[in-house]
Amino acid sequence: MPEFLTLLSPMEALTRWLPAFGEAVCESEEIEIILALGRVTSRPVVADHPLPDFPRSTMDGYAVRAVDTFGAGDGLPAYIALAGEVPMGGQPVFALEPGQAALIHTGGMLPENADAVVMLEYTQPARPGEVEILRAVAPAENVIRVGEDVQTGQIVIPAGVRLRPAEIGGLAALGFQKIQVTRQPRIAIISSGDEIVPLKATPLPGQVRDINSHTLSALIEEKGGLPLRFGIMPDDVGALRKALDRALDETDAVIITAGSSASIRDMTAQVIQQSGAPGVIVHGVNVRPGKPTILAVCDLKPVVGLPGNPVSALVIAGLFVTPMLERLLGLKRPRVQAQVTARLSLNIASQAGREDWIPVTLSADADDFLADPIFFKSNLIFNLVRADGLLYIPADSTGLTAGENVRIYLL
Amino acid sequence: MPEFLTLLSPMEALTRWLPAFGEAVCESEEIEIILALGRVTSRPVVADHPLPDFPRSTMDGYAVRAVDTFGAGDGLPAYIALAGEVPMGGQPVFALEPGQAALIHTGGMLPENADAVVMLEYTQPARPGEVEILRAVAPAENVIRVGEDVQTGQIVIPAGVRLRPAEIGGLAALGFQKIQVTRQPRIAIISSGDEIVPLKATPLPGQVRDINSHTLSALIEEKGGLPLRFGIMPDDVGALRKALDRALDETDAVIITAGSSASIRDMTAQVIQQSGAPGVIVHGVNVRPGKPTILAVCDLKPVVGLPGNPVSALVIAGLFVTPMLERLLGLKRPRVQAQVTARLSLNIASQAGREDWIPVTLSADADDFLADPIFFKSNLIFNLVRADGLLYIPADSTGLTAGENVRIYLL
Repeated sequence: MPEFLTLLSPMEALTRWLPAFGEAVCESEEIEIILALGRVTSRPVVADHPLPDFPRSTMDGYAVRAVDTFGAGDGLPAYIALAGEVPMGGQPVFALEPGQAALIHTGGMLPENADAVVMLEYTQPARPGEVEILRAVAPAENVIRVGEDVQTGQIVIPAGVRLRPAEIGGLAALGFQKIQVTRQPRIAIISSGDEIVPLKATPLPGQVRDINSHTLSALIEEKGGLPLRFGIMPDDVGALRKALDRALDETDAVIITAGSSASIRDMTAQVIQQSGAPGVIVHGVNVRPGKPTILAVCDLKPVVGLPGNPVSALVIAGLFVTPMLERLLGLKRPRVQAQVTARLSLNIASQAGREDWIPVTLSADADDFLADPIFFKSNLIFNLVRADGLLYIPADSTGLTAGENVRIYLL
Repeated sequence: MPEFLTLLSPMEALTRWLPAFGEAVCESEEIEIILALGRVTSRPVVADHPLPDFPRSTMDGYAVRAVDTFGAGDGLPAYIALAGEVPMGGQPVFALEPGQAALIHTGGMLPENADAVVMLEYTQPARPGEVEILRAVAPAENVIRVGEDVQTGQIVIPAGVRLRPAEIGGLAALGFQKIQVTRQPRIAIISSGDEIVPLKATPLPGQVRDINSHTLSALIEEKGGLPLRFGIMPDDVGALRKALDRALDETDAVIITAGSSASIRDMTAQVIQQSGAPGVIVHGVNVRPGKPTILAVCDLKPVVGLPGNPVSALVIAGLFVTPMLERLLGLKRPRVQAQVTARLSLNIASQAGREDWIPVTLSADADDFLADPIFFKSNLIFNLVRADGLLYIPADSTGLTAGENVRIYLL
């Protein structure tokens, strides 16, 4: 039986794995809104007063009782008495009597009894203390009414929303100085492999520097987690087991990048299997790169075994570590992944039954983008450095044709 | 003459403004690569050694002299003597003599004289000390040669590149613990308006809280700048002038959000005009929202006057403050903006000759997204909180039709 019939697709793997670590959302903490960019709300934010909380003009012009303007037009202006000028940032000290208007600026507060604003352009000066209105306005025209943006008791930001500049502004508008957010999930990263040495070491022949703990730290940081590097372990069951146990004790989830040889990958799976129930949920995913991926849960904490190969590790982390983090953060709003549509520069073959993710460079091409696949016989980190995004080839495709429109997920 | 014929388009405005503040890239500073995510390289990164620096196997199998396998096949295996096993992370202590092979694991170092690897699947055990090779390999097959990823002296990351997880990994691979990046541009934000009160104040009738300094701080942070809030100024020439002069002294660029009334906007332009040469370069842009935007340069420092309206301010900051920051950061690589293609849910009219940016919500729609425009009579911040992205309507369009495919720029 071909292997792709026995392996799960990434989506199936995710669907099986995510529920297995339950409702493992990290706790809530209160932080200043000025520090809250990118954080995720842990509770709904409820407005305790309306916005605006006074009727505001959206134009420079004259606040009026709309009824006084009915029938007015270029040929038949309405002459209205001036009651005064609305000060910016203050409350008008007068109310409009019938047949009265007040000069008002954009953002100014409507005087009592005013219900509309006539734009300056449709007025002209008349005798002193009077203004000519050249166009009728309907009630509420050029006015933001009390509560038109937000009403008291309204949930203005639900729980599980990642805060962007707009949300920070909304919180400021309502006077929130602090907000409840999910604390940043602590994610342990264990690098393993007899050939791996730390960044600061000078590798001897046969040794390579630890790349994965750096790429994964950066990815976790980018997605709102707190990466904790647990060092480099030799390919030794005891050492790996000890590191995993400590990581499970001290963090919310663990990522192990395993050596690339088959025997080492199996050893990693065994160690994970023995570190907590239910253990390994998925071993092997029908995707290239990244087939040897391990998805596990040890006593309600997610554990991911990534290929040691740095390109595979980073691509696969995008498929599994990112949704894991979103779950730990309690992120509820469906994520729209940054992407562009591009024309493919050349034909690409793909094995039916397996998903492929291929690094591409993007260049501008008239209205659109041209996607140029980066080919290489192995997974070299600088191929990913050159890449702008990843081209996705679904499992049911046997390849793509030059000139075809494809979707590129931005890196 | 219609106004849109006298106003610049956003692109024209940008093209006129950006060169006017010269090559104002901030200085370089050296930081740890672990802190470098999102920062921008200020100098090219050059490899001081090749990657890999020893020939590596990409497979589990047998390292061979390819010539010894020529002619081998299922029906006619080559019998090759075993010289030993390559230890992971070490240098083989033996060289291959003609007719010899060595057991090797993925990532292992090829022994001297080996030039290819036969996958384990195409071998089988023979007599002790011997292996059967069932398929011929070409020289270099299943091997990463020295320098195949990176060669000595190669520019691996040019200057002006924003560092993503992949670049951080590339730096680690080469053993760089530190990197030269552009320091974060310091961007002053001055809020002005008699009606604006600080977040912690309780607004009186007619007053509103300062939203813009919070949304803009978050945006600047997101784009790699260092926001510095210079407080709230009354609508007073002297006060605003003093604040602007101090901000120009202490920072790399200044953003003023001005009151929304015409007279206040003119006052802001005057103050900017008098604060340094050449002063105001663009006053008014043919875009909605955001027509009253001011783009200026005071003694080589960029100054932006944004509409007070929080939605306009944030949309316009995306059009002008983001490219300004990218220039101050020395970002050279063309930015691919995060976007999705979506089907439009309903017809939208647009004034020919003016660009429009309309907030939309996105929902999943079969393979694609459905974009639902958010309509509102004025610019209320929570309309932007609800939005997933912005729909762009070009100046030459009089509107878009329901069902049309449109491009949505993600917020």
